[in-house]
Amino acid sequence: MLDFSTDTLSPEEAQRLRSVFEPLTQSVRELMDATARSDADADTIAAAKAEIESATARLRSKQLEKTWGLRFTTEGEWLPWTNAVVGLRNPVAPPLTVVLEATDYVWSEFSLGAAYEGPPNHAHGGVCAMILDHVLGEVASNDGTTRFTGTINVKYVRPTPLGKLRAEARIVRTEGFKAYGVAHIADDQGVTIEAEGVFIQPKWARG
Amino acid sequence: MLDFSTDTLSPEEAQRLRSVFEPLTQSVRELMDATARSDADADTIAAAKAEIESATARLRSKQLEKTWGLRFTTEGEWLPWTNAVVGLRNPVAPPLTVVLEATDYVWSEFSLGAAYEGPPNHAHGGVCAMILDHVLGEVASNDGTTRFTGTINVKYVRPTPLGKLRAEARIVRTEGFKAYGVAHIADDQGVTIEAEGVFIQPKWARG
Repeated sequence: MLDFSTDTLSPEEAQRLRSVFEPLTQSVRELMDATARSDADADTIAAAKAEIESATARLRSKQLEKTWGLRFTTEGEWLPWTNAVVGLRNPVAPPLTVVLEATDYVWSEFSLGAAYEGPPNHAHGGVCAMILDHVLGEVASNDGTTRFTGTINVKYVRPTPLGKLRAEARIVRTEGFKAYGVAHIADDQGVTIEAEGVFIQPKWARG
Repeated sequence: MLDFSTDTLSPEEAQRLRSVFEPLTQSVRELMDATARSDADADTIAAAKAEIESATARLRSKQLEKTWGLRFTTEGEWLPWTNAVVGLRNPVAPPLTVVLEATDYVWSEFSLGAAYEGPPNHAHGGVCAMILDHVLGEVASNDGTTRFTGTINVKYVRPTPLGKLRAEARIVRTEGFKAYGVAHIADDQGVTIEAEGVFIQPKWARG
């Protein structure tokens, strides 16, 4: 069983923390892109590395022993702090902003840069699979029942270019603990990768 | 068609670049972990952010317009510079070091920290799918024929904890342009997630 126990924050405190940590995280994403594309000389790299290490020491001066896990406001709103795909405080996350358009339909427009590359100038296929897993998981839990991925089948239609992309996910059928969804990622020329998945409410979470 | 044209580097120059950029990238990964776990106050965050922006400016003083794409040494060795899963110069990559144990079998032991979280203290399911896609792609191209993911089916056996993990991938059948593989990720208690996939040599790469 997963540990969902956690502190809650007032909406105001959550907003304050977001205004502090979101710009920090965005600056780290810029640094990651620069790291992946830099062709600077060894002295410049050494100077950058020293600054990075200093920044890390500052951040670690007060840090959690483990991770943030799931955090909510006192109003019950989920705070996507450090989720690897949508986390506002997680530099690994592109991040996606997932729009919960309807109970059975979500979408996200996002951009993937150099740090998400697989084939030259194209997104890593695994990154695309990660994003499809995430948007399917969001739509599969959007009726108030938290469901986790059971299986996901991904079909690569053609290579997905880096740059602006759109992901969509729909629920096509719900049967008790299970929800069946379809999703895709598209560029401005159409769909590049499709997925279907079964999402399941874990036994320990069934009332 | 993907652009595979590229410069090559002597093994010595590749090693020199690796010795400069690998420690830089590792320092950025530490910073990412610190960012995802920091609970420092706003002034400390602001000071860290200023250092990060300074480091980014240094790195961007000479950088590629796009990405590194695929790079090879003059000896034909692939340099995994910025691949999103194994890139030595890509902070998004954990990175995995994939051991090409046999033509039809590869494995990797790696560790996932706070930046790869989905459920509390567990790896994001999509991150696991990304890793399985990658190790399958490596083993499917390990006989000298570059194959890309056609389809991949992933089954989540149980949540994958953060920490030390092992991935394995095997080819079970090869039919011309296609290779069929199976893979899994395991923690010290056994398999947490399984995958099977079909990997295909693109038409434009067939001689």
